[in-house]
Amino acid sequence: MIQDRHVQEEILREIDRTADELFAMIQELVRIPSVVGEEGRAQEWVFNLYKTLGLEAVKFVPRKEDLLQHPAYFEIGFPYNESRPNVIGICRGKGNGRSLLLNGHIDVVSPEPLEAWYEGGPWSGKIEGGRLYGRGSADMKSGLLANFFALRTLLILGLKPKGTVLLQSVIEEEAGGCGGTLACLQAGYKADAMIIPEPFDLRIITAHPGIRYFRVKVIGKTAHAGQSHLGVNAIGKLARIYDRLMELDLERAKRHRNPFFEASSGRSCNLNIGTFKAGDWVSTVAGAAQLEARISYLPEETEQSMRREVEEAVSEVVAKDPWLKEHPPVIEWFGWDAKPWTEDPEIPLIRRFEKVASEVLTFTPEIAASHAGLDTRFGPYFAMPSFTFGPRGGLLHTSNEYVDLDSVLQTTKVLAAFMADWCEI
Amino acid sequence: MIQDRHVQEEILREIDRTADELFAMIQELVRIPSVVGEEGRAQEWVFNLYKTLGLEAVKFVPRKEDLLQHPAYFEIGFPYNESRPNVIGICRGKGNGRSLLLNGHIDVVSPEPLEAWYEGGPWSGKIEGGRLYGRGSADMKSGLLANFFALRTLLILGLKPKGTVLLQSVIEEEAGGCGGTLACLQAGYKADAMIIPEPFDLRIITAHPGIRYFRVKVIGKTAHAGQSHLGVNAIGKLARIYDRLMELDLERAKRHRNPFFEASSGRSCNLNIGTFKAGDWVSTVAGAAQLEARISYLPEETEQSMRREVEEAVSEVVAKDPWLKEHPPVIEWFGWDAKPWTEDPEIPLIRRFEKVASEVLTFTPEIAASHAGLDTRFGPYFAMPSFTFGPRGGLLHTSNEYVDLDSVLQTTKVLAAFMADWCEI
Repeated sequence: MIQDRHVQEEILREIDRTADELFAMIQELVRIPSVVGEEGRAQEWVFNLYKTLGLEAVKFVPRKEDLLQHPAYFEIGFPYNESRPNVIGICRGKGNGRSLLLNGHIDVVSPEPLEAWYEGGPWSGKIEGGRLYGRGSADMKSGLLANFFALRTLLILGLKPKGTVLLQSVIEEEAGGCGGTLACLQAGYKADAMIIPEPFDLRIITAHPGIRYFRVKVIGKTAHAGQSHLGVNAIGKLARIYDRLMELDLERAKRHRNPFFEASSGRSCNLNIGTFKAGDWVSTVAGAAQLEARISYLPEETEQSMRREVEEAVSEVVAKDPWLKEHPPVIEWFGWDAKPWTEDPEIPLIRRFEKVASEVLTFTPEIAASHAGLDTRFGPYFAMPSFTFGPRGGLLHTSNEYVDLDSVLQTTKVLAAFMADWCEI
Repeated sequence: MIQDRHVQEEILREIDRTADELFAMIQELVRIPSVVGEEGRAQEWVFNLYKTLGLEAVKFVPRKEDLLQHPAYFEIGFPYNESRPNVIGICRGKGNGRSLLLNGHIDVVSPEPLEAWYEGGPWSGKIEGGRLYGRGSADMKSGLLANFFALRTLLILGLKPKGTVLLQSVIEEEAGGCGGTLACLQAGYKADAMIIPEPFDLRIITAHPGIRYFRVKVIGKTAHAGQSHLGVNAIGKLARIYDRLMELDLERAKRHRNPFFEASSGRSCNLNIGTFKAGDWVSTVAGAAQLEARISYLPEETEQSMRREVEEAVSEVVAKDPWLKEHPPVIEWFGWDAKPWTEDPEIPLIRRFEKVASEVLTFTPEIAASHAGLDTRFGPYFAMPSFTFGPRGGLLHTSNEYVDLDSVLQTTKVLAAFMADWCEI
């Protein structure tokens, strides 16, 4: 606890007083496009920002050879070089307080289709009705700068934390985070706790399911459309597999219950089929088809048992179809490979954060599970407790994304007050 | 009939004697890529070839404003300009014989995927085991040059036809032929009969069904994959329409019988679904899906009744699905719009051709229907009887296309002998 409630009030007042500076800063950063894979310009901006505050600023390029050694690593496909560094800002403490890592990702998902954005487009940073619009406004340039602003506020007030504070601005979280947060932690840029202010509506997120991608490919037999009855249409074969996997989605939701995960959306786990592509040309029988799917699985499952469920479902379709028996579908597990992540909400870190947040917010933040994978999952590999707490946003990953500026201010206040408490001042 | 069988024998002997020249010529033309839309270089080559024989050679660029007036026209999408002319070679007769138009298309379909071609690739023109390989070898650069060689043979032998002979090398047949054959006929480059030596195994083709393309689009409701149960997957909605259209294909084949059309492939008509595309991203519920289909219909049907069958089938699916009722699928009829085409095999042109061909080939060529659309369908609009007769080929429109060189020689002989007979010498 901060011994002196007056100090906490001073911190909150200072943040209110300088709120417009924070909003202008977010606006400026939203205006620098940083689609995953092209984070360089925005990272340069963050690097300079960290330096203006007198932090020890570091650019760190991930080393693939190191990553390959780590069990949480999977191939993402972007090259690692000086045009895509992670940026770290270090405020060294006097050594007798707990250290804290405030992490955020600089990369954003593609703003396409551009024509679906209202006036201003994805990089406008337009402020209207208490919202700031633009790709990355919520996810998560506001959180990234809330981290910075929390530390800045303490320093301006002469309340330098006793424990070391690390700020991390990382790349490629949207693609899995291996070259970002994982690389930074592996290189030793870690602390006694990590908070990531992802836009989760001022809730404390302590878990997410395991997540994997897979594709199913089937082949048919091409023929000219004028003799289509002599071919075998791959669309029809894959449609049967689609149907069976959608049944499996319902079966899994019934079979694998978990009230904590179900609380967020009514579902413990999901199997989504995101794409279905077949055929090249209208005048030819489709000779090949493939679907791509994302499946989430619970901490109570193993990846192996989940994969077996998928593979058995596909096998059931094959068993009923002579063509597929002779031309078995191929299942490929690719891309995203996030293990289930859970943090115990009873640990001192989270109990303490909850208490400070309740004081600042005047309500007790809910503890909840995310249905999306988060960089917090890398924490346990480094014995570092982690969780997510950040602002309220809308239309994330689609057009007209926005962040609610009030919630950005609340996030900043909670982070600053907690930093003062955890690291001591 | 050619009064003197010795003259016919002289023609056939001359073609045998110069066969290697013909094959080398085909090889040279196959080596000039001429994918539909990029016919310029190959047309320049043909233009020069026509001139070497002393023909009146013309480059004719289609005029869109004229085409728009014609009932058989549909938009193809390639620009019409001097880089894509049709080429016409005219051998003016003395005015007292019947005129003959020998037409062939210079354009070929895409050779992709290139890696599926054996050594040499799509533009090799490799000759091996009596076959000549390459994109366009069968479809239809061999036929195009058989036309030329037939005329050349008569001229070399001093047997100049009394009727005018037109050679046409046309563009964009593979995309529908409007700017090619249709434009040429409309501009007055026509005759008393038209033959197109498309690669139909030395059969006389006198009919093809009507052909239309359509697409069906459905929308779903996107959601993050981690909450996929809150979305509506467009794949599943479109899969039901796919299934119903495949049933319609079988129903139509039973409902619309036509022994002449059925003789070729066992089917009177076909409904093929060539492509099925849905979703952009594995982590999002597919919010939109579309399929593209090609449907053929018989001369006994009307386009309207055929379209009604398709539309009713889709409506049946909609009637059973509350989501689709609120978000009805869109059916778009696009691209190819070929009316059914039939030529009466009893007309003097075909009876006469059949007789000459029987003499040359020592077997009577079969009269058959094509299941693909042909430029012959433009003939009736200009009161010009037309049919197709050409060599034997394999793997048309796929990798490793080839033509059987013996059949090219037979085609050339039949065309030359028929030209001497029809136009008189």
